[in-house]
Amino acid sequence: MSEQVIRVTLRDLQRPVAEDLERVALELRRIIAADFPTIADANDHLLRMKGKLFRPTLLLLSHRAAGGADRRLVKLAAVVELIHLATLVHDDSVDHSALRRGMPTLNALFSHQVAVIMGDYLYSRAIIELVQVGDLEPLRVFARVTNEMTIGEMRQLEAHDKLAFSESQYDLLIRAKTASLLSGACEVAALDAAAPVREALSRFGMLLGMAFQITDDLLDYTQPEAVTGKPSGLDLKEHKVTLPLIAALPRLSPGERRVVSQLMTTADPTDAQVAEVIQLIEAAGGMDYARRRALDLAQQADAALGVLPPTPAREALRDCIAYAVERRS
Amino acid sequence: MSEQVIRVTLRDLQRPVAEDLERVALELRRIIAADFPTIADANDHLLRMKGKLFRPTLLLLSHRAAGGADRRLVKLAAVVELIHLATLVHDDSVDHSALRRGMPTLNALFSHQVAVIMGDYLYSRAIIELVQVGDLEPLRVFARVTNEMTIGEMRQLEAHDKLAFSESQYDLLIRAKTASLLSGACEVAALDAAAPVREALSRFGMLLGMAFQITDDLLDYTQPEAVTGKPSGLDLKEHKVTLPLIAALPRLSPGERRVVSQLMTTADPTDAQVAEVIQLIEAAGGMDYARRRALDLAQQADAALGVLPPTPAREALRDCIAYAVERRS
Repeated sequence: MSEQVIRVTLRDLQRPVAEDLERVALELRRIIAADFPTIADANDHLLRMKGKLFRPTLLLLSHRAAGGADRRLVKLAAVVELIHLATLVHDDSVDHSALRRGMPTLNALFSHQVAVIMGDYLYSRAIIELVQVGDLEPLRVFARVTNEMTIGEMRQLEAHDKLAFSESQYDLLIRAKTASLLSGACEVAALDAAAPVREALSRFGMLLGMAFQITDDLLDYTQPEAVTGKPSGLDLKEHKVTLPLIAALPRLSPGERRVVSQLMTTADPTDAQVAEVIQLIEAAGGMDYARRRALDLAQQADAALGVLPPTPAREALRDCIAYAVERRS
Repeated sequence: MSEQVIRVTLRDLQRPVAEDLERVALELRRIIAADFPTIADANDHLLRMKGKLFRPTLLLLSHRAAGGADRRLVKLAAVVELIHLATLVHDDSVDHSALRRGMPTLNALFSHQVAVIMGDYLYSRAIIELVQVGDLEPLRVFARVTNEMTIGEMRQLEAHDKLAFSESQYDLLIRAKTASLLSGACEVAALDAAAPVREALSRFGMLLGMAFQITDDLLDYTQPEAVTGKPSGLDLKEHKVTLPLIAALPRLSPGERRVVSQLMTTADPTDAQVAEVIQLIEAAGGMDYARRRALDLAQQADAALGVLPPTPAREALRDCIAYAVERRS
């Protein structure tokens, strides 16, 4: 993979599994349906802010790439999105985020209380569905992954206001918070495959997930709200330390570091403050460093796919890597 | 069972399974152990505010009463307490409660964020352990139960500030919020037993759980903080409508109803306001009504045990009923 990848749209890479993805969306709607009014309202809202089904896409493509053709995988693909959704709902509540994908979060639209309960509702629904699959193995994978994600969230709390937060701590954070679920999605797709295939896909998902999260953290600095659906520079506003800042810090002058420290100790930094710090980080090469790391991880993810037989599904997984690091939102 | 039950202490009824309960406590400690500092600190605190292991006690006694002698049940007993703990942590966060069992809650001691994440951590740990048991059936029961509990929590939100909250809505609330987990604990203890035994224990747990929760709601009105570990009259302070109030409301004069309405619309009612409303409820027979319902449910729970063979374990389950409705904290 070179840095001049051809721009891949999500629709392109979803094409081989487009039909199954439609079934995933229906399955998701069926799973979370509830008689109880508040839950039904919250569900409607969540389905309206429906994401791009990137995790189900990875799961379905991984399954094909591993040589599988089990249509029950649609349920697992719906469950992985459901777990993702449950996590987002609690993350937004923990972060007091007001916007997600350009729409109000559950905690903003309903209340913090409703958000906590809805996250629990969605997660326990996911477990019910996994039990119905009738196989302990996917449960084993997702239970481990969701537990890792909670540890990732705890790490995230420690990434606030801490200019001492290191790159290795950041790596542990993004592995747990983001990459573990992507890895789990790829792994459960190949539970019936030979061990090397299963391991390769698990590793692929982990590396892809890390590249995906670094790209996310870059987009937070670079993309306007109109594109990402949340305010630009939000991480800095919330004093979250991510890779571009970690990489830039040692290269800043004492005066520049003071500007950063000041932002980190200001309760509600202005847009101008945030813009100035982003400029400092950019000038010190923090963005370039993060981009290089994302591309390096992307290359490793690509290499992990080498174990798999050459199929259109494997090529689509390659496109997923390109999408993860080249996307604009 | 008459109203003059002999006062049963928890220690009495735990005697037949005392040794297993010690193993449950150790197992619980092992399960939630974590390397991550914040989680380890939160765990230490949770273990210090350790409850009375009432749910594990029910599970272990139910297992004996169903004729089982499987020591793996210790793990299931630890898991039921873990699920209970996870629920308490999120409940306290949703309710912004500051005290539980006389100790600060996680949200008070750490933060709301830590509480949300810790609840997720504990619950996903519980699922990991259930997977290790290697049987889908307990997972099926606990997944259903925990999902019901989230719906109960949603109902709880609707029980705020609503004087129109009816007794049948209250019943649905306490079934989902409290009784479902007690019922699940009794049911998983008898998964290998004949269907009528399993059903009897599930029904016993449900009825016992409802009686338990009504008693809890009564204690909130009647017991001082020194006994329960949380402020007296807290439900009214938080505008939570429970059975004594529901029963009293239709018997209040228009003037008395206005006093209740006023409390319900006061953001932070005084102790004197709360005491006055409790007195009105008492005088209108609200407390007596709730006590009678708890005793009626207790009798039904007792009848459900009739299916089981007469054993010391069955008698201990009978003592659990007495404990549930006669306890003082």
